[in-house]
Amino acid sequence: MADKIYRVNMTDLTSTIEEVPAAWAGHGGRGLTSTIVAAEVEPTCHPLGPKNKLVFAPGLLSGTVAANSGRLSIGAKSPLTGTIKESNAGGTASQLLARAGCKALIIEGQPKGDTWYSLALTPDGVTINEEKELIGQGNFRVVETLAKRLEGKPGIITIGQAGEMRMGSANISIKDPDGGLRSSGRGGLGAVMGAKKIKFIAIDPKDGKVAIANPEKFKEANRTFAKALVDHPVSQALGQYGTNVLVNIINEAGGLPTRNFSTGQFAGHESISGETMHDTILQRGGKIKHNCHPGCVIQCSQVFNDAKGEKLTSGFEYESIWAMGADCCVENLDHIAEADKLMDDIGLDTIETSVAMGVAMEAGVLPFGDGAGVCRILKEEVAKGTGLGRIIGNGAGSVGRAYGITRVPVVKNQAIPAYDPRAIKGIGITYATSTQGADHTMGYTIATNILNVGGKVDPLTKEGQVELSRNLQIATAAIDSTGMCLFIAFAALDDAKCLPALIDLINARFNLSLTGDDVVNLGKYILRTERAFNTAAGFTSADDRLPEFFYTEPLPPHNVVFDFSGKEIDTFWNF
Amino acid sequence: MADKIYRVNMTDLTSTIEEVPAAWAGHGGRGLTSTIVAAEVEPTCHPLGPKNKLVFAPGLLSGTVAANSGRLSIGAKSPLTGTIKESNAGGTASQLLARAGCKALIIEGQPKGDTWYSLALTPDGVTINEEKELIGQGNFRVVETLAKRLEGKPGIITIGQAGEMRMGSANISIKDPDGGLRSSGRGGLGAVMGAKKIKFIAIDPKDGKVAIANPEKFKEANRTFAKALVDHPVSQALGQYGTNVLVNIINEAGGLPTRNFSTGQFAGHESISGETMHDTILQRGGKIKHNCHPGCVIQCSQVFNDAKGEKLTSGFEYESIWAMGADCCVENLDHIAEADKLMDDIGLDTIETSVAMGVAMEAGVLPFGDGAGVCRILKEEVAKGTGLGRIIGNGAGSVGRAYGITRVPVVKNQAIPAYDPRAIKGIGITYATSTQGADHTMGYTIATNILNVGGKVDPLTKEGQVELSRNLQIATAAIDSTGMCLFIAFAALDDAKCLPALIDLINARFNLSLTGDDVVNLGKYILRTERAFNTAAGFTSADDRLPEFFYTEPLPPHNVVFDFSGKEIDTFWNF
Repeated sequence: MADKIYRVNMTDLTSTIEEVPAAWAGHGGRGLTSTIVAAEVEPTCHPLGPKNKLVFAPGLLSGTVAANSGRLSIGAKSPLTGTIKESNAGGTASQLLARAGCKALIIEGQPKGDTWYSLALTPDGVTINEEKELIGQGNFRVVETLAKRLEGKPGIITIGQAGEMRMGSANISIKDPDGGLRSSGRGGLGAVMGAKKIKFIAIDPKDGKVAIANPEKFKEANRTFAKALVDHPVSQALGQYGTNVLVNIINEAGGLPTRNFSTGQFAGHESISGETMHDTILQRGGKIKHNCHPGCVIQCSQVFNDAKGEKLTSGFEYESIWAMGADCCVENLDHIAEADKLMDDIGLDTIETSVAMGVAMEAGVLPFGDGAGVCRILKEEVAKGTGLGRIIGNGAGSVGRAYGITRVPVVKNQAIPAYDPRAIKGIGITYATSTQGADHTMGYTIATNILNVGGKVDPLTKEGQVELSRNLQIATAAIDSTGMCLFIAFAALDDAKCLPALIDLINARFNLSLTGDDVVNLGKYILRTERAFNTAAGFTSADDRLPEFFYTEPLPPHNVVFDFSGKEIDTFWNF
Repeated sequence: MADKIYRVNMTDLTSTIEEVPAAWAGHGGRGLTSTIVAAEVEPTCHPLGPKNKLVFAPGLLSGTVAANSGRLSIGAKSPLTGTIKESNAGGTASQLLARAGCKALIIEGQPKGDTWYSLALTPDGVTINEEKELIGQGNFRVVETLAKRLEGKPGIITIGQAGEMRMGSANISIKDPDGGLRSSGRGGLGAVMGAKKIKFIAIDPKDGKVAIANPEKFKEANRTFAKALVDHPVSQALGQYGTNVLVNIINEAGGLPTRNFSTGQFAGHESISGETMHDTILQRGGKIKHNCHPGCVIQCSQVFNDAKGEKLTSGFEYESIWAMGADCCVENLDHIAEADKLMDDIGLDTIETSVAMGVAMEAGVLPFGDGAGVCRILKEEVAKGTGLGRIIGNGAGSVGRAYGITRVPVVKNQAIPAYDPRAIKGIGITYATSTQGADHTMGYTIATNILNVGGKVDPLTKEGQVELSRNLQIATAAIDSTGMCLFIAFAALDDAKCLPALIDLINARFNLSLTGDDVVNLGKYILRTERAFNTAAGFTSADDRLPEFFYTEPLPPHNVVFDFSGKEIDTFWNF
């Protein structure tokens, strides 16, 4: 099935199917969403107004059997950061969109009035339907209801109450194979979907399949690629303990932000660690491994049950557990799991919301360590859109402004995640320079600073960090275009066969002859395109900085500050 | 008494008296606060952290008998806008500071812990005292209590609960001769004072006097100057109806922003007009005229009594009445007066807070027209720092972000005041280009667009507006350095004797020989200094724009949009 652009105009409630412009043909995933946003969105427009566009793009390999290729990129101008934004997640939607022949779905305009809608996408196009029953409902209710209402196993892309209320922490959730959710968490894209008055998008590819130009070569490359993934020790640790394997590792490194980023180690780390979680899952009859989309060979997800043995949450990630745990000083893993489930249901970025809770604790809104209080605020305040709920639901920067707090860990108004940039300096360069606000996934220097993947760069010294972050950000932008999960990067950095096999997969899919240089050039193109958008939106190098307290408050136990000058940070862009 | 710099360090609780550096000697008021902030404050620092400085500077003529010379400039990096900020007001503090020999008071650093302080300034220096009794109290209680606690008639500079809570709308209040308050309203400077943990500053000049180099020349110039002020018809209208004379005038022009800037005329304008207010004051035994500082010959202030004949509020300004009235559709002048008093007491900028209420009404927090609801929210939410109170107390932009609203009338996050830039285009240029965020007082084109002062420039066409705003912004920056009330500008624009007399006053005070060109150059220097600070803080021409809706939503009754291109706006800086 030939790939097409599906375009929906929410001002006049029309939709079209368009040919793919030549300039977009080679792009997928993040490369495509950022290209489209840069081409079609006024950089200075209001992110929640009719001029913003919400773009969904499967990766170049999504919908094929290539291992771990099921990530969906979602792009727009972010209401949280004001920058361009790409946030990708697993779930089944990317593969189903690709099989439907949708290279990108562009949603533009904005309806007047209070009517809510849903979209149904098939190979024949998009229909726009009024929606009433599910308005005001959480994401799990949406998925459950649609399982009964719709035929087959459609892909579901949905927003919770947070998106409906256009909160800056609102994510977009994507159904996984089992009725669980994966989240395009960062940057408030759920608010953009809410501003367009779309509650959910259902995707049915019917009997659509993705065409492979050279099936034999594809199969061979996929075998090599999958083996590289499966063999890497980090992949294996992720399958065993999930991403939460990192709690003890980052705590040991003294870079686990604790008590709203006031120290680098958490006394209660054992109670929230991946090892403790692993044992708890086994004791309660949960699942250690679980894949968020068909074809994942790493299976970092899991099913975490409550004490009664009933499913509490899945996709229970290190960054979420760190944020509710160490950053808020909550030691009770069940409270953290309950909060995780609530945030998934309300449709909130767990990082942004939990870091916001940490700032609220510093402001005295609730005490540090009060996990039950966090759950209460999520249910009674955020989900209901009270004043306090709006403050929290609009993120860490919002809480800082509301309460006049200065220790607010954000860059470009997006919360800094689970790695303190004073003790792990490479990631500080990523936070500062990323085109998307603070985001560890944009150039995950933890790999080389801490995990000794792709070599070793001492996390406590400045040497080599800018180059490390630059190389990883370029590579990540390219990987984010393929539909591949970022966790392929560990194998790609260490196993000489991995990256060539990935390039072979793309070449076999499209009958191309791309080289490693092409991949690097793609990454550079994406970063430059995104940065040009931000510059036109009014961002300058003054925005490529960490908050003041990282420079002035030494972080125990290493008692280090972030000591890169502005000029040093700005050399990131020398490429 | 020789002028000195008084410097207070709140980190180590010390104070010093310093000689005036040569580069600062010729400056006063805004020229001095902006020079000091630009020289000593890191442009990218956190406005509520220890690196920001709060600077108080009397004007060059403050403390003399020159008519209308009692304005005090207060400067800092603004927590509301992130730009440099100067906000000036009347009251007695400027004259008393000047008589104490204080050319500028610079407050820097920040104490650790929860202790609150007050400052006492005399010619001998500044003492720093712990304060307990008045913490958590409103501004009127502060003034009343200090009248008993302190000897004589000290100047009082104070913050209310809003400043203590570091809200972005928090003003700094200055006692007038009668225990009323004048406010340095814009830009959240009260939050900076609160962040430095200073509740109030008491000023006692003892027997200090301002030296006049050439008393005879000074007296002569003042006579000419005062006559020009008194003779101008706008001065006379201001003395009769207060600034609120403008309600009917701006409504007639179709530029009275109504219902959160959705139309340009207010059906209830008669009930809130200056004429109605004038008659109500007379009926209830209030005062039509009142001066905010000794020596004012215009007396635009008044005392507005309630129905029982008891004082409700004073300094009841057009912009406050417009904002609570037309913008929130409140027709009950007593509700507006009650809200005005509450905002003065809590220490809130009436423009920012009332425009925030209008956005909250659009968000459905309370109905348009609900004046009683506004008063309730001020008392029960804002003064108590509830979630909703924090949202409102942090200004219009805060409300817009919290509720995901797109019709949010702010520039650089500061609320647009009482003149719609679609129907009065010159003021739109001022809002867009001002170094301080949206602020009518920075270049009051209403004079020439509407009042036919200084000529006539058609408010509905683009021609001449950039030049008008530029000339007025340059002149205003210079006037703001003298300690003069901006209302001298009407006479200065129309009466050929006025401006030379003002320059003669400065020359006679300091034994100088300044010319009109020097005044213009001073204004240009100030604007350039302020803009350089903002550029270093990360602002670009993308910030010199009005919100999107002004370009896309035609304003009744003229059905006009703001139609200046970015390039056209940017020509403002061609000087």
